[in-house]
Formats: sequence, C-alpha cells, structure tokens
Amino acid sequence: MKLTILGCHSATPRVSAHPTSQVLEIKNHTFLIDCGEGAQVQLRKYKVKFSKIKNIFISHLHGDHVFGLIGLISTFRLLNRETEINVYGPKGIKEFIVTQLRLTESHAGYPIKFHELTSKKSELIFEDKKVEVHTIPLKHRIYTNGFLFKEKLGERKLNMVAISKYPEIEVCDYQNLKNGKDFKLQNGEFITNDILTTAPTKPKSYAFCSDTSFTESIVPIVKNVDLLYHEATFLNDKIDLAKTTGHSTAEQAATIAKKANINQLIIGHYSNRYNSKDAFLAESENIFNNTVLAEEGKIFEIS
Amino acid sequence: MKLTILGCHSATPRVSAHPTSQVLEIKNHTFLIDCGEGAQVQLRKYKVKFSKIKNIFISHLHGDHVFGLIGLISTFRLLNRETEINVYGPKGIKEFIVTQLRLTESHAGYPIKFHELTSKKSELIFEDKKVEVHTIPLKHRIYTNGFLFKEKLGERKLNMVAISKYPEIEVCDYQNLKNGKDFKLQNGEFITNDILTTAPTKPKSYAFCSDTSFTESIVPIVKNVDLLYHEATFLNDKIDLAKTTGHSTAEQAATIAKKANINQLIIGHYSNRYNSKDAFLAESENIFNNTVLAEEGKIFEIS
Repeated sequence: MKLTILGCHSATPRVSAHPTSQVLEIKNHTFLIDCGEGAQVQLRKYKVKFSKIKNIFISHLHGDHVFGLIGLISTFRLLNRETEINVYGPKGIKEFIVTQLRLTESHAGYPIKFHELTSKKSELIFEDKKVEVHTIPLKHRIYTNGFLFKEKLGERKLNMVAISKYPEIEVCDYQNLKNGKDFKLQNGEFITNDILTTAPTKPKSYAFCSDTSFTESIVPIVKNVDLLYHEATFLNDKIDLAKTTGHSTAEQAATIAKKANINQLIIGHYSNRYNSKDAFLAESENIFNNTVLAEEGKIFEIS
Repeated sequence: MKLTILGCHSATPRVSAHPTSQVLEIKNHTFLIDCGEGAQVQLRKYKVKFSKIKNIFISHLHGDHVFGLIGLISTFRLLNRETEINVYGPKGIKEFIVTQLRLTESHAGYPIKFHELTSKKSELIFEDKKVEVHTIPLKHRIYTNGFLFKEKLGERKLNMVAISKYPEIEVCDYQNLKNGKDFKLQNGEFITNDILTTAPTKPKSYAFCSDTSFTESIVPIVKNVDLLYHEATFLNDKIDLAKTTGHSTAEQAATIAKKANINQLIIGHYSNRYNSKDAFLAESENIFNNTVLAEEGKIFEIS
C-alpha cells in the first residue's frame, strides 16, 4: 500500500503549496483522493499514470478539494481515454462537472459514473475481491466525508515444506487449503489447515479525514488503522477559529489518533498563515508520538 | 504598456507548460486575459497584485482558457476582496461560475459583474478616459473573441519654452492648450496651438488572438497595432489539422501579422506535441521577421 501526497495545504493554491490531493495505490488500484486545482500537474510531477486512475473520491465540494477535477476529466479525454471513471462525492458533484462540460461544449468521450453520496452514516461505497472503501462522515461547514480504505483478509499461504510430507495433496487441492479447509487423507485422517498453511498477511488500512472539526464519532470507524491522515489546519492557539470554520488543530488530530489506537498519523491541510510546520509536529507529537507531516511528493508505504 | 505571459501552451497543463493566461498593464489598469488552470499561482509567481485586477477578459469557454477562473474568484473572496470584478466572456460564463459557487455553497462576497458576449461583429466592450477594449471575432470550434486593447490619444504636451515667450499665458490656460486650442492675445493676435504644444505620445495598442483558424477578417481590426499575440498551435506541416481543430500554424500567424502591418508578433498556444519552439520561430520569421516566442514569465514592454 502506497500513499503519495500531491498537495496538503488548505484554501488558495500557491507556488509551492498545492491544495488537497492524494494518490493511494492499494491492491492494483490507483485511487485519487480529492482533486484541488493543479492536481493533474502534480500527478504528472510525481509520475502517476493517468490511465491507472479509475476511481476518484471527493470528500466535499469546497474548491481546494475539487477545482482540479474538471481539468483532469478534460485531460483524460485529450489523452483519448476510453475506460470508465467512477467519481464518488457529495450530491451535486455530477451537476458540478456536467454543467462545465456542457458550457465548454465538451463531452468526456468515455463513461463517467457518478456515485453521489448523501448518507450521514458510514457506508460501504466500493468493494471488490480485495478492497473495501467506506465513508467516514465528517463535521464540516458543508456535507463532507472522509474515506476508509481497507484491504480484505487475503488467502492463507501454503506451507510447502509441510505439504510436501503428504504426497496425496495435489496442486488442484491448493485453492481449498488457501481457503482454510482441512485435508482428508485416503485413510480418513484429517490434516488440519493450520499445519498446511500459514496466516494471510494482515490486511492494511488507510483512513483519510479532511476537512473536519474535532469529532469523536470518527474514532470507532478508523479504529486501529495502519495510517490515518487527519487534517490539522490550525495550531491549538486557534482552537476557537478551528471550531467556527469546521477545522481541527494538530492537538485535536493527535487526540483522534490516540483514541483510535492507530499506528501512524499524518497531519496536513495547513493554513497558509503558518510559515513553518515544526509547531504542528511538536503539538501533535505531544499527544501522539508517531506523527508525520504531510509534504508534497512525500510517499508513505506500508509493507 | 506591459504584457506578462503567465501561460502560453494549449490543452492540458504540465509542470512547465501552463495554459493560456496573460496580464496586460495599460494606463493604470491591470487586465487579466484568459485564465487557464493554475493562472492564480502564476499570478503569484510573477508578482501580480490580485487587488489590482478589476477586469478579466475570457476569449472562450474551453478549459485551457477558463478552468482557472473559479479558483481565482474564490481566492479573491479568501483575500477579503470588496472591490467589484468585471468578467467579459462568452454567453454562459455567468452560469459557469455561478453554478460552481452555488454547489460549493460559496458566495463571492464582492460584486461580480458579468458582461456576456454574443456578437459576431467587433464591438466596444470597455471604455474609460484613456483606454478602449474591442472584441476581435475569431473562428474557432466554439464562440470565441480575441481582444484589442487601445490607448486613447492623450492630451497635447505643453512646450514650456514657447509658452514662456508669452507672459499673457497663465497656468489656468494650460488645459485649453493641452486640448488643442489656439491662444488669443490681448491685441487680438492668435498663437496657433502647434507653436505652444507638441503632439501627444502615439497611443499604444495590443491585440490578443487565441484560439482561431486562419481568418483574414482579423486583419482590419488589428491593423497597425504595436503588438499582436496570435496563436500558433501547429507548424505548417499540420495545416490540415489546424483547420479541422480551429487553430493556426506559425506561418498563418505571421501572414496575419504581415497583412495587418503590425509592429511585433508574439506567437504561442503551442501544441504539447512539439518539444522545441525553434521551428515555430523560424517558420514565422520566414514571413514576418519581428516575431517573438511567448514564454512563461516573459514580459513585453512598449514604451
């Protein structure tokens, strides 16, 4: 699982401060998460193949999370894309894109499937054999969701040394073993599965939470994730401003991380009022030690 | 008069190839011309004060000329703008912006006045004491205008050496002299204005033409301008592609420049298919010698 930060600042884009956008590579998927202005250029800069993106998740319709989407959708067309794209985002996102395509007298030229979200409860919005994506309802000035990306528990792994002791076990039996079944010998004896296989790799998980006020309702949804991105727009001296604008402080992000017992916390969505990020790190580490600052181009790998 | 190129490439933005946007400073105005994605970051990069922009001219509603507008309008609000902004562009530009503001649950917070254009003939769309802006109807796949920016003829300049010979001429007479009036002495004799003043500075003019097929209907409108920007998306080996896509070649841009007897030609809106711009310059210079390549950050001053 590999997360690339394309942009991690709030509000207006600046020369070296792009608004929110991330790429998550998980089980052969390349998920784009949020798409602030300039995201398509950041994708190029960090060598993400446009054709691999088939699912885009938009947390909310504020400009610093969505103004880059129409440009990306147009660029897909110019690159002669034919593959369907799925866009998951708040109700209104379809009108947002379709109106612009109509007024620019353009058409995508490939299928765009909009999955408009309205639920205020966490829901499963994407699923295949290996991955699930759930929404994380957030508390912002506008309808907003974070997203929880979870690998599914994989197959058990064959213990070839153990298997080789039983010549009766053939290649055609392997899938049953991977599925956890015991093996019955011709003499009627059962070899239990845990002798013939080992446990599958622990499924990895990533939770993305931007933008939100401090809300403990996030905690049970992101419980024990390997990696949590939680916005930290302000430092704690601006806790009142954070509340009125629907944002969090670094300390609040760290508090969520601690309560949810997650492994590693990434903070970002910094307000442009701060020149240095050091105070964000210090404030967060004071509550939750395994904190890392989001930075453009930074890659997080969980192996 | 000072022109700053913010972006001069066509189609999809790339790391060092921004789509069309320019800033024209003329007689205390700071006009923004087209606004492709990332234009607001380019404005910051090239130190253009956001607060000085009061008039934005959009040639057409293709993404590489307009996708940066909603972000800029939103940023104005975040910067607590109160001054009115005027947006001149094709019919539909109001819906384009207003729909996005509504769906992002935002409001500009300052007045935006949309001037929606529909005429297929050149028209005067902006005028004050010192400047006029006229449309230049272009021939593209979608309704498109270029813009002609013209200084008005200024006042005549006082010839103080000549004036000092006539003690009867007082300070309160100066404005009449600047306006071109003769001076009547007490003895009834007239001193003609051309003795007392010199001609005003020649008014400067800039014409912006992007995007367009080769069309000679531009020629009379841009006749004798000091500076002409004419798109040159392709080289002449792609003249058929230029025609079908509603674009021009470098040779065609130069042909317009030559026929219109302009002073200096800037070409740009290069297709991303070309790695080098040298061939564009060579092809254009072959027809019209005073050609310059548009480049990001390049400044053209006419003094």
